[in-house]
Amino acid sequence: MNEFELIDVFFKSKALIRDELVYGIGDDAACVRVPPGQDLYISTDTLVADVHFSSNWDPYDIAWKAVMVNLSDMAAMAAEPCWLSLALTLPHNDTAWLQRFSLGLHAALTAYHVSLIGGDTTKGPLSMTLTVHGLTATGKGVRRSGAKNQDEIWVSGELGAAALALYSKETWPAADRALLMTQLQRPKPRLDLKAVLQTYATAAIDISDGLAADLHHICKASGFGARLFLESIPIHPLVRQYLPEQALEFSMQGGDDYELCFTSPAAVHDELQEALGQTGLRCYPIGVIETKPGICAVNSTGDLVPLVPKGYRHF
Amino acid sequence: MNEFELIDVFFKSKALIRDELVYGIGDDAACVRVPPGQDLYISTDTLVADVHFSSNWDPYDIAWKAVMVNLSDMAAMAAEPCWLSLALTLPHNDTAWLQRFSLGLHAALTAYHVSLIGGDTTKGPLSMTLTVHGLTATGKGVRRSGAKNQDEIWVSGELGAAALALYSKETWPAADRALLMTQLQRPKPRLDLKAVLQTYATAAIDISDGLAADLHHICKASGFGARLFLESIPIHPLVRQYLPEQALEFSMQGGDDYELCFTSPAAVHDELQEALGQTGLRCYPIGVIETKPGICAVNSTGDLVPLVPKGYRHF
Repeated sequence: MNEFELIDVFFKSKALIRDELVYGIGDDAACVRVPPGQDLYISTDTLVADVHFSSNWDPYDIAWKAVMVNLSDMAAMAAEPCWLSLALTLPHNDTAWLQRFSLGLHAALTAYHVSLIGGDTTKGPLSMTLTVHGLTATGKGVRRSGAKNQDEIWVSGELGAAALALYSKETWPAADRALLMTQLQRPKPRLDLKAVLQTYATAAIDISDGLAADLHHICKASGFGARLFLESIPIHPLVRQYLPEQALEFSMQGGDDYELCFTSPAAVHDELQEALGQTGLRCYPIGVIETKPGICAVNSTGDLVPLVPKGYRHF
Repeated sequence: MNEFELIDVFFKSKALIRDELVYGIGDDAACVRVPPGQDLYISTDTLVADVHFSSNWDPYDIAWKAVMVNLSDMAAMAAEPCWLSLALTLPHNDTAWLQRFSLGLHAALTAYHVSLIGGDTTKGPLSMTLTVHGLTATGKGVRRSGAKNQDEIWVSGELGAAALALYSKETWPAADRALLMTQLQRPKPRLDLKAVLQTYATAAIDISDGLAADLHHICKASGFGARLFLESIPIHPLVRQYLPEQALEFSMQGGDDYELCFTSPAAVHDELQEALGQTGLRCYPIGVIETKPGICAVNSTGDLVPLVPKGYRHF
């Protein structure tokens, strides 16, 4: 199977068609027609074998994770993901691998009604770069830079399990290990928060690099600092169980959770809670924006605890 | 310098701002506003070290080529390139390398008035994936599939020099070798043909995989075949000089030229030639679309010559 047959069989033939798509895979470029009154959002993520995923993973899971990582950026903007390009670099033309990868890819895209519109297939060390395109009504996207003094800081789910998955031991019960791997391999982009964020959030970010590091981006972009209530951080129960001493560190600094951190005025706290209830998602208020720069943390006795926003860094 | 400082210094601070850009680098996604009445084109190219370029090249040239390869896809659609995302995977944080790469990148983007709107920076084997976004008035893009029976087939420049560059010998004069390397490293996307293609072309393609292979894509997409006049193929003079025996093969099958192949009705031949004259670009009529499937070639004595569309294939 050559490059073009491979694209036809594994990618083009199964791509979902959305209304805005004039044409997708098969020309020198895809063509889309953005509906009037909409803003377009564009985000790119690269996943490198044995950095972002293990080359031993089921290719189905690799594809699934790659898509979800990319869609999470749209969730952070409160945008609806619409079209995706996939550039796949493979060491060799392994049809069985491509079969599984393609299954995972199309399942993931179908689950979120996203069209695969193009990409590239090249020979080289295993890696992939995905570019997702999303839409909101004009001006409705949520940026990092809108947080205001005294805004509440929220996080969209329990933290630390994805980071713990990489430290899990053979001696732990299989059910726990499986659950941790699911958190690592099958992150859920918080797209269900779109309407809530558009209505109530002043700023939002995907905390894939770790809560502390990514909250730091919100603070820097907004020109404020943050105070976190360490007691309120939603630590994943398995993190608390297996690494009680480091539970807070894993939850604050561990990456790969793909939850969102967002801010909103304290005055809408009750309304926001009610709107969240309707999404079925539980979010957690964990702190407050303040004028003092940097992030400080307060423990259960009200004492200040120093905090360095480490997070995952490539260099 | 960490990942975020690196992005600020080498990429964000020098990015050009276009009118449609609401915001670019620095959030979870860039935001753009497509003007009403415009179609949006999206194309992705991956370049892998020692497959698409040599890791020994000056990083300035690597960046320049990567951009031009990507813009060439917009030229093939007769679209105006507007914004570009760059996903760069690097083995280590080499500031001197990044400095040169960034210089080449911004010079290339500025030359074509394209905004760098985002991307990703990851650690891994050297490669890059670029996604370019372009615009035309609604419906004005040129596809592969519009060629009609008896249309003339054109090519936008002399062929084979980029392929010859990879075969050049130390014993050849330095000036010739330098010229060949320029053809390989500094392809010129044929964006100046945009208006001509929109007015006269029925189909177009970027012949980066080689004329024969890419013309085959036009034929397949349009449901026709092609007859090429081998005498009319514009072979680059250095190819004719250094490889007289294989000159035609290099010109027909060699990739990396980034010229365009396009078709247009024979009835507009004179008008088209006049319009081309105004662009300052010389294009060459090289054959005719016919109903018989496949590509056949006719030599100077009118005899049929068999032709296999090989072209570059990754697998």
